[in-house]
Amino acid sequence: MALRWQDDIIVIDAGLMFPEEELLGVDIVVPDISYLVENRSKVKAIVLTHGHEDHIGGLPWILSELNVPVYGTEFTLAYVEGKLEEHRLLDDADLIEMLPGHRFTLGPFSIMPIRVTHSLVDCVALAIHTPVGVVLHTGDFKIDLSSPDGKPFDLHAFAELGKQGVLALLQDSTNVDRPGYTPSERAVRPRLDEIFARTKKKLFFSCFSSSIHRIRLAMELAHNHGRKVAIIGRSLDNSTEIAQDLGYLDLPKGLIINPGQIKEMAPDKVCIMISGTQGEPMSALSRAAVNNHKFAKIDAGDTVLMSSRVIPGNEKGIYRMIDHLERRDAKVIHDDGTQGLIHVSGHGSQEELRLMINLVKPKFFIPVHGDYRHLKRHAELAGEMGVVEKVILLEDGEILDFDKNTAVKNGKVTTGRVCIDSGGSIEVVEDVVIRDRKHISEDGILLPIIAINKRTGQVESLPELVMRGFAVDDEQVINEARNIVQKTLNNSSAEEKQDYGVVKEKVRNDLKRFIQKSTSRRPLIMPVILEI
Amino acid sequence: MALRWQDDIIVIDAGLMFPEEELLGVDIVVPDISYLVENRSKVKAIVLTHGHEDHIGGLPWILSELNVPVYGTEFTLAYVEGKLEEHRLLDDADLIEMLPGHRFTLGPFSIMPIRVTHSLVDCVALAIHTPVGVVLHTGDFKIDLSSPDGKPFDLHAFAELGKQGVLALLQDSTNVDRPGYTPSERAVRPRLDEIFARTKKKLFFSCFSSSIHRIRLAMELAHNHGRKVAIIGRSLDNSTEIAQDLGYLDLPKGLIINPGQIKEMAPDKVCIMISGTQGEPMSALSRAAVNNHKFAKIDAGDTVLMSSRVIPGNEKGIYRMIDHLERRDAKVIHDDGTQGLIHVSGHGSQEELRLMINLVKPKFFIPVHGDYRHLKRHAELAGEMGVVEKVILLEDGEILDFDKNTAVKNGKVTTGRVCIDSGGSIEVVEDVVIRDRKHISEDGILLPIIAINKRTGQVESLPELVMRGFAVDDEQVINEARNIVQKTLNNSSAEEKQDYGVVKEKVRNDLKRFIQKSTSRRPLIMPVILEI
Repeated sequence: MALRWQDDIIVIDAGLMFPEEELLGVDIVVPDISYLVENRSKVKAIVLTHGHEDHIGGLPWILSELNVPVYGTEFTLAYVEGKLEEHRLLDDADLIEMLPGHRFTLGPFSIMPIRVTHSLVDCVALAIHTPVGVVLHTGDFKIDLSSPDGKPFDLHAFAELGKQGVLALLQDSTNVDRPGYTPSERAVRPRLDEIFARTKKKLFFSCFSSSIHRIRLAMELAHNHGRKVAIIGRSLDNSTEIAQDLGYLDLPKGLIINPGQIKEMAPDKVCIMISGTQGEPMSALSRAAVNNHKFAKIDAGDTVLMSSRVIPGNEKGIYRMIDHLERRDAKVIHDDGTQGLIHVSGHGSQEELRLMINLVKPKFFIPVHGDYRHLKRHAELAGEMGVVEKVILLEDGEILDFDKNTAVKNGKVTTGRVCIDSGGSIEVVEDVVIRDRKHISEDGILLPIIAINKRTGQVESLPELVMRGFAVDDEQVINEARNIVQKTLNNSSAEEKQDYGVVKEKVRNDLKRFIQKSTSRRPLIMPVILEI
Repeated sequence: MALRWQDDIIVIDAGLMFPEEELLGVDIVVPDISYLVENRSKVKAIVLTHGHEDHIGGLPWILSELNVPVYGTEFTLAYVEGKLEEHRLLDDADLIEMLPGHRFTLGPFSIMPIRVTHSLVDCVALAIHTPVGVVLHTGDFKIDLSSPDGKPFDLHAFAELGKQGVLALLQDSTNVDRPGYTPSERAVRPRLDEIFARTKKKLFFSCFSSSIHRIRLAMELAHNHGRKVAIIGRSLDNSTEIAQDLGYLDLPKGLIINPGQIKEMAPDKVCIMISGTQGEPMSALSRAAVNNHKFAKIDAGDTVLMSSRVIPGNEKGIYRMIDHLERRDAKVIHDDGTQGLIHVSGHGSQEELRLMINLVKPKFFIPVHGDYRHLKRHAELAGEMGVVEKVILLEDGEILDFDKNTAVKNGKVTTGRVCIDSGGSIEVVEDVVIRDRKHISEDGILLPIIAINKRTGQVESLPELVMRGFAVDDEQVINEARNIVQKTLNNSSAEEKQDYGVVKEKVRNDLKRFIQKSTSRRPLIMPVILEI
């Protein structure tokens, strides 16, 4: 989201998405920032609400195209640093810490970060004072009135804004389908405590690696129940280290052991914090489930506690992993609705959304952060409350023009997704490449290879057929196909033969027809001409 | 599942699975029937419990390998007929109807089909009297004591079996995670009735096409609320037709209209039954959602009611479809937990599973039909009841030997999955093809093409590089790669050059190393040698 006043633009958050299955070989999806690049000189900064991947994960890509200052809270910037270092972008980056409750200025904008609560720590909403009024962006939040880190949700700041008047509220829509209130992060403690108490052998504890509250709770419980803690998984390691550095984890001396020491411990004296709640194939937990992890050995009678939710789309991978764990006779506890409160959401439910709208009383309400159906439901919810002058449903790329009294849609800018293969460096995967991959992945590829004599223009030998991801066992079909290519070539005029594009297209068409008829298949057909 | 006594084998059910995403280009997955084919002469029949795809969908494949008689109830066979006709296998098939409550004999087996209730009609459990005792297979069931078709679950037959003694019970594990009882199919009526009552414009009603009870209920409600019914979608059409033929649907005259007539009707006078609850891209509902269906036009204010559950793995497709429907300003009602009882499961919950075990009091209990974690939970549930002598957890392929007093695991037979591309005919997709597709789909393919003179053994021109699903823009990298291939060829001895296998392997290795180093990519590298 970008906010523009004349020649100044600020950007709020810079996230990524994980690709849907059909984006073959794509690792991450980042936003198309054409609009920002076109207005390069106007972009003053990126301001971050919190450190989750869908809010900061696009930074390496964006900063490599558009190096502007990045504002964030201490914890958020610690995550960003790690990420930029990984991509060797840290040296050139300009990271500026902001403090909740401390207003700062960016051109015509004066920005007040306000502390909110979420599944991660050090999260803020942004109250952006503009020449036409305050635009308030909640970031991701729930209203946790007993936040375990003792840093409460700043109700007063929002109430104060409400009194002074807010032009527009942009609010997190994730949990708009859930009635009531989201329980406090503290609410999982009793049930997790019970599980620690009754576990007789090794306890494997898995949660999202950014869930600092949850990590701290697990370590506290481990300590209380006389278990040492081993940490397995890079992201978990990294999070724990940052949390310790910044004072979010104050661990008793000797609590943490090395993964290599697990085997020396009595099973009831160790808790293994392990990453991989979503069944990602290369995660530590997935590998442990198939007995393929050096340090994480799961024995019969061990408990695997997954203190997390199933992210839609990951069901199959997660259930497959659980089946493997069950085969090792581990006791698997996951959030299937029958296990008590072992996980709570970080996003506010309907009553929290209503509470915020009521506190803030914005003139205009714009739902953000959710699928279209969430945005729509959220717009309805806000509209029904009678405190908002106008509810506006925006989709990616739409421009909304504000003045002190109006908010009007005004055209679109280019937006969209950019597919990234993050294998080595950051590289864009073009749509045509994905389309080819998809075609080949479903139907395979067939390459008729034709040798043409450069001097004479003559075809030098019977064409070869090469196939992959597509198999024809029938020798006769293959021979006939080769003959068809040969015939197509014979029937082409000398002029046509000089234009390889025409030759290829004729071969493709004739071969396609034949292959479809004789095999009912539609491989990608890609004629290759070799000049001899 | 196969039951064998000496030289006689009967098979229970013949289902298919839908492939996971990583099985690229595979349409369906059917069981490997090697064991049955090896024992071809002993296989006496396939006996079906009910007509769902996961119980009958493998028949075209299996019967084309192994043409044996197929037993099923009237409705189940009607489905099978359609399926076999589609594959032109019906003329050669031997379909034999069985009646619930009527015992029949197959060699040493005497089989009593017992009526059970499920989301489909005419479903049975199979009590198979063998020389060593009764083996009871429940099929899929719930205990619906007020089945809407007036054909009740036959509690008495199971009680009677319990009194006489049952050697082994094999029971449906699907809903073992759910406490309590699954509500009756009738339980959805009040809520669906409310939705019909309050809907002002067009009502699109979608459910699984085999949910005959649900289809009947929707048509009844449409009639009561003064709406005509149009049916859109081949599978729904087919189901409705069979249900009508066999007396499961007794429709008032004139209730059904043609899809072409929808546009002539007042919006509040029509209910459109439409297939596609799982967001399948080519389904009628998905196409209607993007305004790409000739007859199903969704206008602002229309209601789309999805009386179904989300099958795990289909979340993304379904939510994408719902987003499109919301963009058309349809009111979408789906089973998100906040809509009241608009769908009930067809599988029994824990208390029904316990009731059946208690009625039948089997000596041995074997959970079937579920993921491993379901089977395990089900084995635990049965074990805790204290009425079963022994609980046995079997996985695919395991052999269980029975006599009157014992049940002992005894080795394994070949089982597994066969991947089918059902495009035109039924064709097996080999694992190597799927592996290639997967590799290419993630990383693309690179083909170095080398022309070798047949007579001289000389390489005739600079090698060509062809790539697809993989792109190198850097001309210099491409030229260097071509030179590397050339160098590898130059450095090969004449003897090596005569063995194309060796040449290809050397080229592959050298090129792979270079490409990985210079692009960080790992395309499938497939050298092609063209003899001139």
